[in-house]
Amino acid sequence: MIFSTACEHLAAIGRDFYRRGWVLGTSGNLSVVLSREPLRVAITASSVDKGHLTEDQILEIDSEARVVNGGQRKPSAETLLHLAILQARGAGSVIHTHSVWSTILSDYHNGQGGFFIEGYEMLKGLEGVVTHEHREWLPILENSQDMTALAEETKALLRDNPQIHGFLIRRHGMYTWGADIGEATRHVEILEFLLESVGRRQMMEPQY
Amino acid sequence: MIFSTACEHLAAIGRDFYRRGWVLGTSGNLSVVLSREPLRVAITASSVDKGHLTEDQILEIDSEARVVNGGQRKPSAETLLHLAILQARGAGSVIHTHSVWSTILSDYHNGQGGFFIEGYEMLKGLEGVVTHEHREWLPILENSQDMTALAEETKALLRDNPQIHGFLIRRHGMYTWGADIGEATRHVEILEFLLESVGRRQMMEPQY
Amino acid sequence: MIFSTACEHLAAIGRDFYRRGWVLGTSGNLSVVLSREPLRVAITASSVDKGHLTEDQILEIDSEARVVNGGQRKPSAETLLHLAILQARGAGSVIHTHSVWSTILSDYHNGQGGFFIEGYEMLKGLEGVVTHEHREWLPILENSQDMTALAEETKALLRDNPQIHGFLIRRHGMYTWGADIGEATRHVEILEFLLESVGRRQMMEPQY
Amino acid sequence: MIFSTACEHLAAIGRDFYRRGWVLGTSGNLSVVLSREPLRVAITASSVDKGHLTEDQILEIDSEARVVNGGQRKPSAETLLHLAILQARGAGSVIHTHSVWSTILSDYHNGQGGFFIEGYEMLKGLEGVVTHEHREWLPILENSQDMTALAEETKALLRDNPQIHGFLIRRHGMYTWGADIGEATRHVEILEFLLESVGRRQMMEPQY
Repeated sequence: MIFSTACEHLAAIGRDFYRRGWVLGTSGNLSVVLSREPLRVAITASSVDKGHLTEDQILEIDSEARVVNGGQRKPSAETLLHLAILQARGAGSVIHTHSVWSTILSDYHNGQGGFFIEGYEMLKGLEGVVTHEHREWLPILENSQDMTALAEETKALLRDNPQIHGFLIRRHGMYTWGADIGEATRHVEILEFLLESVGRRQMMEPQY
Repeated sequence: MIFSTACEHLAAIGRDFYRRGWVLGTSGNLSVVLSREPLRVAITASSVDKGHLTEDQILEIDSEARVVNGGQRKPSAETLLHLAILQARGAGSVIHTHSVWSTILSDYHNGQGGFFIEGYEMLKGLEGVVTHEHREWLPILENSQDMTALAEETKALLRDNPQIHGFLIRRHGMYTWGADIGEATRHVEILEFLLESVGRRQMMEPQY
Repeated sequence: MIFSTACEHLAAIGRDFYRRGWVLGTSGNLSVVLSREPLRVAITASSVDKGHLTEDQILEIDSEARVVNGGQRKPSAETLLHLAILQARGAGSVIHTHSVWSTILSDYHNGQGGFFIEGYEMLKGLEGVVTHEHREWLPILENSQDMTALAEETKALLRDNPQIHGFLIRRHGMYTWGADIGEATRHVEILEFLLESVGRRQMMEPQY
Repeated sequence: MIFSTACEHLAAIGRDFYRRGWVLGTSGNLSVVLSREPLRVAITASSVDKGHLTEDQILEIDSEARVVNGGQRKPSAETLLHLAILQARGAGSVIHTHSVWSTILSDYHNGQGGFFIEGYEMLKGLEGVVTHEHREWLPILENSQDMTALAEETKALLRDNPQIHGFLIRRHGMYTWGADIGEATRHVEILEFLLESVGRRQMMEPQY
């Protein structure tokens, strides 16, 4: 994928997700692989509004998070997490969203290090899941401003949980990914639906 | 109705319902009868995004779920449920949605095999209901990946409950239908309103 | 106001309120006074979709609910309530909405015949209210399909409660009105905001 | 900034915030500094619909709240609060919104004079906050129709709480500000997200 095409895709997703309340303020970030050998990734810059992305707010970086195209802007501190996921999973795209439901469930279940989403038909929207009789573990990492440490924790988490499709950071939202930008986007939509469903289900019956 | 007109209608409903969060990911499916003798039905193909339906994502099938027009795509596994409903009810259109409220209420009330919606003026939006003093039974089927078995259960359910206007599948959403596509669409809107109302009513007073 | 202008206003309000979920299915109805002497009122016909109103779905009626302009369509059964309010209050417009929050609060508080909304700044959006230190009584009528009887109850309610700006019908939604169509529309918006606020406030603290 | 540019900005923000339900009815108000020496401020007039602002509904005022440009319209009574904040903080823009969540949380926590929002990543969207390990105090003022007194209370509040980014007025909504109109708008979005998050979090676990 060429850089300008990647920028158009990321801007369209940003507009859509902003409208849905998943990347408000300057929260969230989006990346897509441009080439594998050598690794080149288009990723949103630090502190930009995802609802109104312009091409100069998207950077081209290499496997060490160095900007190879994109002028003066700084990569987001969370670039290291994107690279950790892209490399561990061979993913083609990583999306970090910051919705209300991911924020509060990542706090509510934090004591258990995560929670299971189980028995929902919508789980079949996650790549490789073929039945609702599936038990999806959604781990929660403690939030941190030390992104190098958080990237190491992410690598360990992905190594220890080869089946997961996403994870939460406490009071900070969700990371998910996909083979390409369409799959990553669908994973966001599926997981956000499931988070709202389990959150509301719980409010209906607290002992649930 | 000719196939291309049916496709336009289904695509418009898909866009609208996607925006409302009722057919996210690749969930939900839509069908409309093209002719009765012989039976010909336009139905959304398996695993397509209902928010952006194109004509090549809609199939023309016969009474045995064989594709008679539509190229390479596979019919959805749930085609058998559509046919069971179309034949048992003489319906002109069947719609399966997958909203948050139908998902959680189909789980909350699962132990009782369904629940009553009673005393709401909005019930009069269901065909044949002329007063709010109506008691609508909304049955819940256990979810399954065996669609042949689920279609048989659906037939038995429709035989045993001649008065119902829809049913839920546990943690999987809702099926409703109508004499034509307008009536089926209205039934979705009416039942979704009622599900949100009884769900929120219950959260306000758990013993309700 | 001439009939065609009234139709444009009612259609625009219908589209907006449909989008907000206040007149789903064929619920809700809208009226505006065209002239006082003799009384002529433009009102939505029975069983039409308020989100897509066309001029032929709006009737011109007189003070006895007789159609004086509008072809074949039937006036809504609720026309009698509109006339009762227009005459008792000298209002220029009456709006009946059917939202989720008005539906569930009209049920929750039904035992007390209504409830007070008190101490909210937003109350100042109701005509004649100049301070948040206001106590607005929102009465609830039991629902009925006998519109002649319900219109009589409405007249008695308006006589006994000269200060109210609206009322609920149990599990059936809200009626409000205004000197003109702008004021009636604002009253809907104000009361819907207050209903959502007191409903959510109550869910946060049930003993509230 | 010239007056006509300010009007375009305020109208655009008004339309967006109206759509989000933050300035319904005639609630809310918006201001932006045009010049410092002498102080000139563009501010929305009293009792206008913020969703459809026109240039003649926006006034240019001086440091004493006198209209220096804007014809017949009256400044809003809350103009004194805007001036108090602009002067105490050297802010370039002040925004008052009136959402459901700010309304109910300003009531729920009123007994404690405010509440802390703590540990959320989204706090970093507030100017000067660099870590989620931040404890934001959101004070609550009792509502009043005496704007001169409320402006004095606001001045005292800002003096006593140099770190705050906004405050609530009981059952009346939120005030926030920024160095410019973009920062003020972002602060609204950040604080509204946090209010919804802590509100829903609390409903999930009342003892929270």
